[in-house]
Amino acid sequence: MSVCELRVSLGDRSYPILIGAGILAGSEALARLAAGRQVAVVSNDTVGDLYEPRLAAALAGAASRLSIRLPDGEQYKNYESLDRVFTQLLEHRFDRRCLLVALGGGVIGDLTGCAAALYQRGVDFVQVPTTLLAQVDSSVGGKTAINHRLGKNMIGAFHQPRLVLADVETLRTLPPRELSAGLAEMIKHGAIADPAYLERLERDLDALLSCEPVALIAAVLRSCEIKAAVVAADERETGVRATLNFGHTFGHAIETGMGYGQWLHGEAVGAGMVMAADLSQRIGLIEAAVVERLRGTIAAARLPVRGPAWPAERYLELMSVDKKAQQGLPTFVVLERLGQASQRRVPDAALRATLAACTG
Amino acid sequence: MSVCELRVSLGDRSYPILIGAGILAGSEALARLAAGRQVAVVSNDTVGDLYEPRLAAALAGAASRLSIRLPDGEQYKNYESLDRVFTQLLEHRFDRRCLLVALGGGVIGDLTGCAAALYQRGVDFVQVPTTLLAQVDSSVGGKTAINHRLGKNMIGAFHQPRLVLADVETLRTLPPRELSAGLAEMIKHGAIADPAYLERLERDLDALLSCEPVALIAAVLRSCEIKAAVVAADERETGVRATLNFGHTFGHAIETGMGYGQWLHGEAVGAGMVMAADLSQRIGLIEAAVVERLRGTIAAARLPVRGPAWPAERYLELMSVDKKAQQGLPTFVVLERLGQASQRRVPDAALRATLAACTG
Repeated sequence: MSVCELRVSLGDRSYPILIGAGILAGSEALARLAAGRQVAVVSNDTVGDLYEPRLAAALAGAASRLSIRLPDGEQYKNYESLDRVFTQLLEHRFDRRCLLVALGGGVIGDLTGCAAALYQRGVDFVQVPTTLLAQVDSSVGGKTAINHRLGKNMIGAFHQPRLVLADVETLRTLPPRELSAGLAEMIKHGAIADPAYLERLERDLDALLSCEPVALIAAVLRSCEIKAAVVAADERETGVRATLNFGHTFGHAIETGMGYGQWLHGEAVGAGMVMAADLSQRIGLIEAAVVERLRGTIAAARLPVRGPAWPAERYLELMSVDKKAQQGLPTFVVLERLGQASQRRVPDAALRATLAACTG
Repeated sequence: MSVCELRVSLGDRSYPILIGAGILAGSEALARLAAGRQVAVVSNDTVGDLYEPRLAAALAGAASRLSIRLPDGEQYKNYESLDRVFTQLLEHRFDRRCLLVALGGGVIGDLTGCAAALYQRGVDFVQVPTTLLAQVDSSVGGKTAINHRLGKNMIGAFHQPRLVLADVETLRTLPPRELSAGLAEMIKHGAIADPAYLERLERDLDALLSCEPVALIAAVLRSCEIKAAVVAADERETGVRATLNFGHTFGHAIETGMGYGQWLHGEAVGAGMVMAADLSQRIGLIEAAVVERLRGTIAAARLPVRGPAWPAERYLELMSVDKKAQQGLPTFVVLERLGQASQRRVPDAALRATLAACTG
């Protein structure tokens, strides 16, 4: 059983990301963290039934163990779910030295991280992401959040995990739509930071879509490296970290407008990246061929490449409450060229042209 | 108009505390922070009507201004109130560069701080404490929280304000019970850190109870100095900061058991300190005379000196979910001597003897 290790460098909040196939059962890193502590595994019924038993050995040395199951889906990433976690922790008298383990996808990871950030003003937590999206994106970087009915991820905190355990074996049970959703963020990493990685993704797409472990481990590792480097440079998103939001201003608008849980986050980001690339071309940054290449790669990953058929005003309305907005004027992450992104305010006309061309 | 300034040293999270009489209207420090930003003043109807107009000049340079009023009382320090703040901020499209101003007592300060910690994963906030308790305690140190039905302050974050503005003029409209509640924390500061300060408080008690500005400014300043020094040494309460919880394990049990809002926090701490002092004496740390002196001072400050008449089991039950507990075994902050506190686990028999002697 081989394990790839990568370190997220954040001073006294640094932590390792371990990536491999079949690494949950025997994880010594998790066993060391859990030893002698109150440990709560937060999961949903589907993932919990499948994978929580695999953690048993690593958690055998815990002082006590609690299993918390939450309903599955983005629409449950709210305070009610958070409160269910708090209630169980309090009923079982978990103190501030306890450890939470997030076992699941992005919803479970964001929620559990948020619970860990807030329970008794902050306790340790471990991410065990079981979706591709969570393995390459949401489990890395310490962004935790719940949704508000007026906006996605509007309520949350920066709270770094102590360990991330990404086992690509858990991806075998993932519905194909969710695998594609994960690929969206990986394509993004290539587009904003590493053209050679983008090329490799394009070449390995079939292997990735059929969950071939070697291809998955290599790609998850490279995506985590890219994300970890950006996070280490800008933990609290005051600058370069914002480039990770490539495709996300449009994507969040789609998610919010559709209602959470209709489009997967990665699907919305897929269409959003095509829109952001189109916008980059319209303001003179990249060639039309680059836009077409990205559109092709995103389509080949079985992701949508167009936004819903809403009037431009609806998109503009939805985007102006996006948290990347500054006092009502949305900025966009655009591609300066393939492999380099930046934040820019864009002319209204270009934005409307993109909305006209890329939706419906 | 004289202003005393004190700095809380926390690296890049350092901030000033300004203390004086009549300092709200002309605050340049607040004006500098507010200039060009979206600013929301969070308050309740009573305090807001009285003092929000005084902030008008300092906030004149804000890009936009929003007034958020919450219901008054500890029982509203919950997620519903927090959500009201989030909803208003989102409806008014406040972005992550906005500034929240907490105008009120500890409930408003804790809630607003918690909202600032969580809104879009953290925005700036200013504390304008208008109760004595908030001026000497809750506004300093960055502890923010809401209550859970199973425990007080169980949900929250460490989030430092950018500025604390303590105007003792606002204390003139404070109900006498709340003035006494503030004195409880000040007596605590003397008891755990500075016997000379305790002596001064005892001497100035009448002046303080009649809101004499000079006495108040001097005492608020000294209390803030003591608290700021402890916080600077241990921001996240891994060690010495816990000594600020002197009287609080008992106090929280009383508050939780009575239901929030029945006893004021300071009143519960008043009785709690007598209990903690009694316990310190029973385990051989201090003389009975010290306990009597503290009991007398607390009574002279018009605070309760006995806990409610509950069976010992009820207290023990309530205290074992207290967040100072470690895996079910509560530790207590005790007095090693007047002016020095520490944390200790105490024998069950001593604890029960204290409960028998100091309640009912």
